[in-house]
Amino acid sequence: MHIFYSDQHRAHAGSHEFYRGELVPCFEKPERADHVLAAVQARGIGPVLPPQPFPPDPIARVHSARYLRFLETAWAEWTALGNAGDILPSVWPIRGFRSDVEPVNFMARLGLYSFDSGTPFTAGTWAAARTGADIALTAQAHIAAGHRAAFALSRPPGHHAGADFLGGYCFLNNAAIAAQAWRDQGAERVAILDVDYHHGNGTQSIFYDRADVLFQSIHGDPLTEYPFYLGHADETGSGAGLGFNQNYPLPAGATNEAWFAALATACERIAAYRPAALVVSLGVDTFADDPISKFQLRTPEFHRLGRTLAALQLPTLFIFEGGYAVAEIGDNVAEVLQAFEQTP
Amino acid sequence: MHIFYSDQHRAHAGSHEFYRGELVPCFEKPERADHVLAAVQARGIGPVLPPQPFPPDPIARVHSARYLRFLETAWAEWTALGNAGDILPSVWPIRGFRSDVEPVNFMARLGLYSFDSGTPFTAGTWAAARTGADIALTAQAHIAAGHRAAFALSRPPGHHAGADFLGGYCFLNNAAIAAQAWRDQGAERVAILDVDYHHGNGTQSIFYDRADVLFQSIHGDPLTEYPFYLGHADETGSGAGLGFNQNYPLPAGATNEAWFAALATACERIAAYRPAALVVSLGVDTFADDPISKFQLRTPEFHRLGRTLAALQLPTLFIFEGGYAVAEIGDNVAEVLQAFEQTP
Ligand SMILES: [Zn+2]
Ligand SMILES: [Zn+2]
Repeated sequence: MHIFYSDQHRAHAGSHEFYRGELVPCFEKPERADHVLAAVQARGIGPVLPPQPFPPDPIARVHSARYLRFLETAWAEWTALGNAGDILPSVWPIRGFRSDVEPVNFMARLGLYSFDSGTPFTAGTWAAARTGADIALTAQAHIAAGHRAAFALSRPPGHHAGADFLGGYCFLNNAAIAAQAWRDQGAERVAILDVDYHHGNGTQSIFYDRADVLFQSIHGDPLTEYPFYLGHADETGSGAGLGFNQNYPLPAGATNEAWFAALATACERIAAYRPAALVVSLGVDTFADDPISKFQLRTPEFHRLGRTLAALQLPTLFIFEGGYAVAEIGDNVAEVLQAFEQTP
Repeated sequence: MHIFYSDQHRAHAGSHEFYRGELVPCFEKPERADHVLAAVQARGIGPVLPPQPFPPDPIARVHSARYLRFLETAWAEWTALGNAGDILPSVWPIRGFRSDVEPVNFMARLGLYSFDSGTPFTAGTWAAARTGADIALTAQAHIAAGHRAAFALSRPPGHHAGADFLGGYCFLNNAAIAAQAWRDQGAERVAILDVDYHHGNGTQSIFYDRADVLFQSIHGDPLTEYPFYLGHADETGSGAGLGFNQNYPLPAGATNEAWFAALATACERIAAYRPAALVVSLGVDTFADDPISKFQLRTPEFHRLGRTLAALQLPTLFIFEGGYAVAEIGDNVAEVLQAFEQTP
């Protein structure tokens, strides 16, 4: 399958995230994409191509105008205020506060659009995120043109980003943007399967009241695992979207048997939904040795994941999300893609 | 007037707050209360008495059970997890996230109950905040027993704390707890006037849908001033509380003329409301030389404030809130109280 990639991701390299009252080095770093690129090239998964530039329109179909305006100008505003380091929020609107009025103050706008202080916004963040969305859109167009699958090797990841918020190392929701592009090109139904260790809260929230995009997510139980405030099993959609969102939270340390049982159920639902295409939020922080996650997948499991997805017989867009065991993520991603390719 | 005070506030002494991507020394420090105590003693405003211990009940009338449970055990949990420094949040639930499910993870619970990372929770925070509430309740009881006024010299401040969230250096909402105590003792109506530079978002949110507690707040425009996400003029209450909340946001740099025009309107509303008592959230960060605020009050204005409040002829409970020009806040507070006392 074709791999879409750009070196532009390197422009996004945060120095620190704020966690447990301290600034600690970022887990989400450029080496992550480098390792994945090297692995898919080493295995000859397919040609690596640069993205096409897209206009802002397909991104604006998913993200709010005021949020995009903020992202576009954030670094310039920040430096104009005399700052030089990475941007992290320090105040935000929880329940009872207003989000309808956009403040003038920069830090207030940053907090309005953020749900953690672990997602540094740097000089190159917007360029990297924007290119990442182009990668997802280019890969989507490649499949829409008749190919079975493609891999959007974008960075930073996207599945934690909502219509108007960043967090969890994510700024633009690449999976949602690609799914929406399919819809806007005439596909009646699109399915998104999120196999990252962390719940795809951004993707869920974007499509929560819609029946035209099915969302399935297998992840660590939010009671104990990030992003904590979304991803429970009783979140099944609202309004027209009721029944079109399913979460499969599993306890930290869950067995691979439990994980594949959830995957089987998710795949059954996807098959029954009869989508025109499948978008896979491919995080490999489900890996047993991932430093911030607690599932137990290893090579045989990533292989089985690829075969299981292939069996759905759907046009399939893989989008890179999390995975922090830097040296190993390349092999884990490549194993999924290769198994998919080898399954007729 | 009697001043209620306890040295217990010293137990709350955060080292740093997280702001603009950096850990910076705390503005809210024990010296603040020390300077106020020294000034009111130097002027002979009245006897300084310790608080009576109150049961948790009057606090639980304002704050949610799960929030109080968290505050009570937070430091023990934090240290049991192997941490030693002050606690600051790093992930939180903005719009679209759930707040109904309390996570198990400590940092997730902290974020559930926090709206900024500028409010360090320390080893002595709960003891100080709990004693601060006792101070407010003791002062309230003193007035309810027949005295004209009292000053609750508590620290940390309270007006940014909501029913279930901390922030803005605040943990328990002393003003709200005192107002609720009056209600629970049979007073039909209580008014709260917040003259701190910053909007009393916590107090507003606690009483927003109620007609039995009138809330008036004069403060820096939230478009540019903390707490940013609440405090606009169009927030006038909801449901039964519609019309019983008024905000008087003024631009940073507003003239004293504008400030006293807002005060006059607020006092008119209070008088028309005919409350059994008045609680004054007395922040003096309206001072012209305050390091984090932008109004222009000086000694003559603090004097005028005291006289204006006295003219309402209401049983009046003053509660200490903000004010960060440390050396001067004592004189500014004492000026208000002395002018009040000297006005028959
Ligand atoms: Zn993840
Ligand atoms: Zn203040």
